[in-house]
Amino acid sequence: MAYTCPNRSIIDMILKLVRFKLIIILLIIINFSSAKERPCLLFNTDEVKLIRAQLGEYPLFDQTLSFARQQIDLAIVQPIDLPPPGEAGGYAHEKHKQNYRDIQQAGQLFIITGEEKYAEFVRKVLLEYADFYPDLGSHPLSRKQAPGKIFHQMLNENVWLVHASVAFDCVYSWLNDQDRAKIEKNVFRLMTYWIVNERGDQLDRIHNHGTWASAALGMAGYVLNDQNLVDIALYGTKKDGKAGFLKQMDLLLSPDGYYTEGPYYIRYALRPFFYFAEAIERNQPELKIFNYRDQILRKTFYATVQTMMPNGVYPSINDASRTMNVLSAGTRLATNICYYRYGQDQNILGLANMQQKVELTIAGLILAKDLRLNPHSEVNWESVELRDGFDGQSGGIGILRNGKEKNRSYLLMKYGTHGGGHGHFDQLSILMFDVDRQVLTDYGYARWINIEPKSGGRYLPENKTYANQTIAHNTVVVDGKSQNGGNSKEADNYSGKRHFFDGNNHSLQVVSAVAENCYDGVKMQRTIFWVTDSTLTDPIIVDLFFLLSDQKHSYDYSVHLGGQLMTTDLKYTANTEKLSVLGEDHGYQHLWVTARSVSKKGFSYTWLDGNKYYSMISNASEGAVVSFCRIGANDPSFNLRSEPALVIREEKKNHLFVAVFEPHGYFSEALEKSVSPTGQIESVKVLAFDPDEGAVVAVSGKNGLCWVIMTELQKEKMKTSHKITSNNKTWEWTGRYQMQKLTESEK
Amino acid sequence: MAYTCPNRSIIDMILKLVRFKLIIILLIIINFSSAKERPCLLFNTDEVKLIRAQLGEYPLFDQTLSFARQQIDLAIVQPIDLPPPGEAGGYAHEKHKQNYRDIQQAGQLFIITGEEKYAEFVRKVLLEYADFYPDLGSHPLSRKQAPGKIFHQMLNENVWLVHASVAFDCVYSWLNDQDRAKIEKNVFRLMTYWIVNERGDQLDRIHNHGTWASAALGMAGYVLNDQNLVDIALYGTKKDGKAGFLKQMDLLLSPDGYYTEGPYYIRYALRPFFYFAEAIERNQPELKIFNYRDQILRKTFYATVQTMMPNGVYPSINDASRTMNVLSAGTRLATNICYYRYGQDQNILGLANMQQKVELTIAGLILAKDLRLNPHSEVNWESVELRDGFDGQSGGIGILRNGKEKNRSYLLMKYGTHGGGHGHFDQLSILMFDVDRQVLTDYGYARWINIEPKSGGRYLPENKTYANQTIAHNTVVVDGKSQNGGNSKEADNYSGKRHFFDGNNHSLQVVSAVAENCYDGVKMQRTIFWVTDSTLTDPIIVDLFFLLSDQKHSYDYSVHLGGQLMTTDLKYTANTEKLSVLGEDHGYQHLWVTARSVSKKGFSYTWLDGNKYYSMISNASEGAVVSFCRIGANDPSFNLRSEPALVIREEKKNHLFVAVFEPHGYFSEALEKSVSPTGQIESVKVLAFDPDEGAVVAVSGKNGLCWVIMTELQKEKMKTSHKITSNNKTWEWTGRYQMQKLTESEK
Repeated sequence: MAYTCPNRSIIDMILKLVRFKLIIILLIIINFSSAKERPCLLFNTDEVKLIRAQLGEYPLFDQTLSFARQQIDLAIVQPIDLPPPGEAGGYAHEKHKQNYRDIQQAGQLFIITGEEKYAEFVRKVLLEYADFYPDLGSHPLSRKQAPGKIFHQMLNENVWLVHASVAFDCVYSWLNDQDRAKIEKNVFRLMTYWIVNERGDQLDRIHNHGTWASAALGMAGYVLNDQNLVDIALYGTKKDGKAGFLKQMDLLLSPDGYYTEGPYYIRYALRPFFYFAEAIERNQPELKIFNYRDQILRKTFYATVQTMMPNGVYPSINDASRTMNVLSAGTRLATNICYYRYGQDQNILGLANMQQKVELTIAGLILAKDLRLNPHSEVNWESVELRDGFDGQSGGIGILRNGKEKNRSYLLMKYGTHGGGHGHFDQLSILMFDVDRQVLTDYGYARWINIEPKSGGRYLPENKTYANQTIAHNTVVVDGKSQNGGNSKEADNYSGKRHFFDGNNHSLQVVSAVAENCYDGVKMQRTIFWVTDSTLTDPIIVDLFFLLSDQKHSYDYSVHLGGQLMTTDLKYTANTEKLSVLGEDHGYQHLWVTARSVSKKGFSYTWLDGNKYYSMISNASEGAVVSFCRIGANDPSFNLRSEPALVIREEKKNHLFVAVFEPHGYFSEALEKSVSPTGQIESVKVLAFDPDEGAVVAVSGKNGLCWVIMTELQKEKMKTSHKITSNNKTWEWTGRYQMQKLTESEK
Repeated sequence: MAYTCPNRSIIDMILKLVRFKLIIILLIIINFSSAKERPCLLFNTDEVKLIRAQLGEYPLFDQTLSFARQQIDLAIVQPIDLPPPGEAGGYAHEKHKQNYRDIQQAGQLFIITGEEKYAEFVRKVLLEYADFYPDLGSHPLSRKQAPGKIFHQMLNENVWLVHASVAFDCVYSWLNDQDRAKIEKNVFRLMTYWIVNERGDQLDRIHNHGTWASAALGMAGYVLNDQNLVDIALYGTKKDGKAGFLKQMDLLLSPDGYYTEGPYYIRYALRPFFYFAEAIERNQPELKIFNYRDQILRKTFYATVQTMMPNGVYPSINDASRTMNVLSAGTRLATNICYYRYGQDQNILGLANMQQKVELTIAGLILAKDLRLNPHSEVNWESVELRDGFDGQSGGIGILRNGKEKNRSYLLMKYGTHGGGHGHFDQLSILMFDVDRQVLTDYGYARWINIEPKSGGRYLPENKTYANQTIAHNTVVVDGKSQNGGNSKEADNYSGKRHFFDGNNHSLQVVSAVAENCYDGVKMQRTIFWVTDSTLTDPIIVDLFFLLSDQKHSYDYSVHLGGQLMTTDLKYTANTEKLSVLGEDHGYQHLWVTARSVSKKGFSYTWLDGNKYYSMISNASEGAVVSFCRIGANDPSFNLRSEPALVIREEKKNHLFVAVFEPHGYFSEALEKSVSPTGQIESVKVLAFDPDEGAVVAVSGKNGLCWVIMTELQKEKMKTSHKITSNNKTWEWTGRYQMQKLTESEK
């Protein structure tokens, strides 16, 4: 048996004794239980002294403190409100969230300032919960999710407990015995009982929900000085190590620290990982938690923040929002703790500079101190490939970076695991960021998070029917069906494969990967070259998407480009008076076809997004159908955003889509200034194409620009040297790929 | 005859004499012509001394200077390029614009710093023009506009000359005689000849193009010391005062300083007005130009900048962009000169604070000096009504303002003149701004300005077919036709009429106006109440749009709300698989109908825009047809922006549309926070309605909110006291309108 119900526990016995006024015995026991020093989760006595001594020294710490004071001083004078449990995203839901945020902050303020008004606030709120919580039953509005009592899902309840544990820990020693006992019994004991005995399945999941459950239970355990609870948190309900926090650290993260659900979800899980790790380090230092699995927490932090686009926003891959960013609570917490536990790093200082807020702990103090010395710290990540899968064998993501300061651009390609329930059918999809926004966009989730009138802020039906589907991504759809038929369980069986990656060569960065299990009988390999050339203002993407099959298929190359069409050399027919949908299912039903073109051989398409122009130059075959689309069909509740997309359809057995993406020029409507609305690249051509040997592609442009790119097309057919002859010309290269810039005479 | 051709002029004679080496005579004449001190347009010797003495004192002046140095230091080392005249928005067009900006800035830098490299740059560029200009003919790509030689329209040529005159003025005394004479002959004399003798029609227009022509000619005249040119600029080609700069000051501006084409166009005309005025003041102080017409220049400046929305962006009424703002060159120039000529004002300091850049003249120095003393200056305009028409008798615009600092909101209603060729058929339309954007939007122009691939940056066909049309605005369309049949000449015959306006009562601001010449047999009156109530977070708009006719018409109440639909209590049918257009013409052909509803009695519609929710509560009749629309149909070149709109159709003789607009709550996707997604107002009802007497409207909401608004409906039926009985209830009020907030017992 994992854990005895609290009404039979020692605490309860003590309380019965109190009623018999056996004060002497009580005092002895209290002394016994207070033998443990508190706070014990985020502070120790020496740190508190240090922090208090250095107030007024480090602007960022002082500002954070002052801002927290303002917020909590305001909260203190409001009536305390514990509304009856309600709908996700509704008032009750948000209010209980605010309550835990407030008491945690008040607890930390009490520790740092010593001002009892903050402790008094925590006491009052927790006592209200002690009256409120025992009468609650399982939440009625859970809709297929494991319900909590205060919240519709157990997840939120665990988040509540993580924060409330910090708050309780901060005032624990200050509380009188009666209040402390009441809070302990009616809130913490009941809640931990519920976690272990009623929601043990959540706790034992190898999933971020399990991490929250572990952290909640373990942190409460430390505060209650109940090692049994902590052990369950660490090793699972059976305490056999097959579940629990350590197992999660083993299995949820790849050896590079990549989290299978993607950055949006690990950002959320950073809180339980780092809060609980910090608590473990302080209470069980012998576990050496920060060194566990070769410092997997450090790797996880770096892998997470390195996925951020240059503006500090996480890429919107999988079920993610377009805007989650460096300011999020988990990211901030991990930034602070990593700096404290793993040592100085300019990039962490750069992150803190973007955050402009630190944790109110010793970690935050030290970060603020170093930031005062380096006030202009900036984040400067290199290109990086992150392996996916607990053993690093399940593909990964490749992130290429270019440029400096205001001109940083970013390119992501996805070829890892499907990512479970939050995964999208988007193998080999790409996302490009430039200046201040995604330029080749990933739709992210179809969800208006926490907005009650939008289905309680939950994932919307269009998340499954559109956002998840392959056509919603910048990749290729075969025969109009999503990858793995749009079946998550099926997709979870496979992953992409890494092929080659080079982010070190500034003039030519490259990422290549394979997906061979998305469609029966169709192999896909995508290779992106990112070329920097001194004659051009911006780096150029050359995208080679190769499909191999012994049957004819329809291949839809889909690309989501925001902004406004400026010009194209395609002769198209605009659907001016009637619009209809692109297809019947697999997300096609959500695309209006605004224009359609039967391509001549190759075309260019220039659009304006923000203050910059972008051109796509395609090698489309003569007769390929190009559909200009806009998201929003079959969306009766107006849940989707209206955004444009382009789909190029080729009917082939084997095919090589080649596309060049060139950013160029500048436009400011306010300044009425337009520079270089036309790009430099003029055409892209496949000079040679042999599925077994490779392909040779030529990119030509103004002022004699001529690049020849040679590359192999199949990972399985890798060899050292390559030779292709086509139209009486022979190309030879060694290794995976080679690029030549030809002069006029060499052409 | 207005002006003799330069090849017969005295200058030419001098040059012939030079060839005969009559050096003595030449020197005498040069001495004579240099009797005039230069620079004479923007500087005098004392000011230059003062500026030089105070360099390093005022941060904003120093920053501006340093930034100008950086720019020009870079320009100086580039090869000078005078490309053959080209397409609007193309390289040549932009390059010649850059040239005049560079030489003006270099000229001013020379005056301020004394560094000859700047003068040398001006000399070189002007000498290049002296070789380049004489061979040019009339520009071939003018497309119906009066062509210049360098530019496709004379307008740009005049802008060139204004700036080049400043540049020439700055280096005039420094140049050697030969260079000065060559520049004067081959550029300034030829160009002024062209203005007067070939483009005199432009000069004599009472139009902003005429103002540019006057300023160009007059400023060149002062530099050349040719009073004849100046007199033509001031009084017209016939020098009879029926045209020219002074007549423009009489007729282009209303007594309040409002400019009939609207803020976007006066912003552009501020430059010639203020540059030339400054030059006149320095060369002909006896004209007292800054006091002319009761200080019309001061009024014009204030009327212009007071139309700005709280973010410093001009409202996009008429053919205007969505983004033109406080940073624009004309606005900056006028801000500086007004401060210098009309004295200190906190609001001007606030504008300069937004601009963060001053003019490199004595005016800029003084502004920078005062801003150093008041570094936190902010703009705080009051509500204001601006009369339109040279005599103030042609309606006007009403601008209401609410809130402070980050919470400023703004409401504009339009009831002035049509505004000529740039006017839209938008009588009684409204525009609302909140937080950081237009919430009830005005489309502005259909134009991608200066973007060469979009028809050379010109107005696009959709500007006439959509952006100009009544349905594109937040007003009422009668029988599906634009006002005045969409005929500009017809519309120019009329204007709206002011009725009442009160921007002083913070709790209830109001603007009311009449349009009776837009449709035969239909009178329209719109009254907007803007109510601030201590129980609500935001002020509430109550919009009463009254239509009177003795025939039945279809009345389309059109409103353009951005963002995303959150919820509505309308039962609608979404057009999920096919879209078709709202109508055949008058702009309706550009609207896709995304959903349609036959209204029950009254409805609400809530949307999210940016970080805030907005609700519209309408009194729609049972059976009224509500169309949910999206802009973009019949737009084969993708020239239009895709934005939503709502159209409510009522088939009636007399009708009163009542709509409440309530801003509420907060949403941040990045913070995953949503507050108050539902508004407080629940319904709006017409309690009594008598076209001759007035209407009584009730607005009801949560927590017992109940407002009763009584108002008269026809300006012509104005009377002191009103009484209406309906359903056995009698309402009485005096004056134009009255509002009561009822308690529970009074309901």
